Amino acid sequence: MIAAVAFYGGIDLGGTKIQAAILDGVGNVLGAARRATPTSGGPADVAAEMETALRDAAKAAEVEPSALAGVGVGSPGTIADGNVTSARNLPGWEGTFPLAQTLSDAFGCRVEVGNDVQVATDAEFKLGAGRLYDSLLGVFWGTGVGGGLILDGKPWLGRGGAGEIGHVVVEIDGARCTCGRLGCMEAYSGRASMEAYVRDLHERKGRKTDMFKLMREHERTRLTSGIWARALERGDKLAEHTLDRAVRALGAGVASVMNVIDVEGVVIGGGLGVRLGHPYAKRIAEAMQPHLFADQRPPHVHVAALGDLGGAIGASLLLSSAEAAS
Amino acid sequence: MIAAVAFYGGIDLGGTKIQAAILDGVGNVLGAARRATPTSGGPADVAAEMETALRDAAKAAEVEPSALAGVGVGSPGTIADGNVTSARNLPGWEGTFPLAQTLSDAFGCRVEVGNDVQVATDAEFKLGAGRLYDSLLGVFWGTGVGGGLILDGKPWLGRGGAGEIGHVVVEIDGARCTCGRLGCMEAYSGRASMEAYVRDLHERKGRKTDMFKLMREHERTRLTSGIWARALERGDKLAEHTLDRAVRALGAGVASVMNVIDVEGVVIGGGLGVRLGHPYAKRIAEAMQPHLFADQRPPHVHVAALGDLGGAIGASLLLSSAEAAS
Repeated sequence: MIAAVAFYGGIDLGGTKIQAAILDGVGNVLGAARRATPTSGGPADVAAEMETALRDAAKAAEVEPSALAGVGVGSPGTIADGNVTSARNLPGWEGTFPLAQTLSDAFGCRVEVGNDVQVATDAEFKLGAGRLYDSLLGVFWGTGVGGGLILDGKPWLGRGGAGEIGHVVVEIDGARCTCGRLGCMEAYSGRASMEAYVRDLHERKGRKTDMFKLMREHERTRLTSGIWARALERGDKLAEHTLDRAVRALGAGVASVMNVIDVEGVVIGGGLGVRLGHPYAKRIAEAMQPHLFADQRPPHVHVAALGDLGGAIGASLLLSSAEAAS
Repeated sequence: MIAAVAFYGGIDLGGTKIQAAILDGVGNVLGAARRATPTSGGPADVAAEMETALRDAAKAAEVEPSALAGVGVGSPGTIADGNVTSARNLPGWEGTFPLAQTLSDAFGCRVEVGNDVQVATDAEFKLGAGRLYDSLLGVFWGTGVGGGLILDGKPWLGRGGAGEIGHVVVEIDGARCTCGRLGCMEAYSGRASMEAYVRDLHERKGRKTDMFKLMREHERTRLTSGIWARALERGDKLAEHTLDRAVRALGAGVASVMNVIDVEGVVIGGGLGVRLGHPYAKRIAEAMQPHLFADQRPPHVHVAALGDLGGAIGASLLLSSAEAAS
């Protein structure tokens, strides 16, 4: 019997946007779509937007969701058996929600849920900027800052909680992080923390910025990666200052991790990482340099080659890789 | 043919002391001896003290060095083929010295040289406080602060430079480290940095302390771990303040690493770690807590069970483990 060509869906559930894609079994994107992540409501509302995003991607790829060999999801939060608990940066998602079951019922196909950062790291490792390395650190610079580790070709998960690079301490008793702790790298460089910092300086301390005006003009409710990029293009001083501060924290935090794990490559992904691209990957590498113990052979620092789609592609690999291996 | 019982030598070359031991093939210590690490001269002088230490240990064990199945050495610096280059904290050791060959000629047996921190971590993993874990972080708190990683039962060396936990940044633009960089964990918690800090506060700023008096009384030229322990017993305020500052840095730095690698256990060794013992391992665990992302399940934090001899025992494993495996 000749097997039919299998297509897979992938959904990346981020704090700002939901990205969906349809792929063949070797990582080629046949169609893609994105939706804004709801900022209110609860898990069911988020799942409904995920469904819409995947259906739009399937339409673009001219396939029926029910004909897919399966759909993979990269999600924040704690994941067990397709259930997602305490998903950070998502509305009303403190408890547990049966995400795999809900989406499987909607699409009529198998759904697997994995950790968002880990699937995106896996995608860059297998198909993207890290494909030439055996060991890799993925740094996903977006609403928060997540990290994914591949050591000797395999994801390193520790006891299940590895990769929380956003919560490496760069200043003891420093800025308050969205996680509630003090001095985390994410407290300076996560998009959510950066927005809170700018809002405080602008609204309470009168520092000038056009960022909130840009946000309204572009009908956004948050300072998205696109708003940050536009503000930089316009030479907005407060945006520049805040990004300088973010890069300084990323340099110290990523270099600290490199001093301990000493992997070959670093891939910078995430909404901000991809949007700000090569010039900022270069700036992060420069900010790492004074903190690297083995400074004569710094790791290679790359922008995520799969761009915005890396998370969705990695999510689809949850199914296609498993089948390829079986 | 019945094999003769094999004995092994192990030498731990530290910044303050040289510890030697004679062991049987399963890690039992038959004799031990220690010497102060020379503070002047060069590699040949250091090697001569190492030879004396090993001969003293062999005498205690009632064996001849030439009858040993081999001698393992744990050394700082960059190690390749038994040669040691740029050994930090050792006098005049900027260049390359053929340590294995020199000691092999002296003892008339095989000599292997490994990284000091990695062999000590390996000893704790195989025979000491980490023997029940699959993955482990060793933190060696002494003249400097070194780190060793065991992941899934195997040493993780990265590209050869992994484990430099002393140079995790805990304060961007913070205190000057002995490595020349700013804000490293070791700049607050390494014995050498702590001594420089105390000397500055005492000699230049008039802060009271009995530590230098204790040092002279005990005929030491440095504030050794023993001097620190005695100063604490006497309630020396400057010693307490400096150790509080060290523990705060260790808490932030070790927690940062845990947030990324999430291993089961942490073993605190090194001269200060062993000397200050359980109360300080507990204090470090408490100082880690506010920085741990998965704070509901902190890693287990232990004092190195092999104590001062861990490095020498680990060094001997360079030979006995290799033979057991062959």
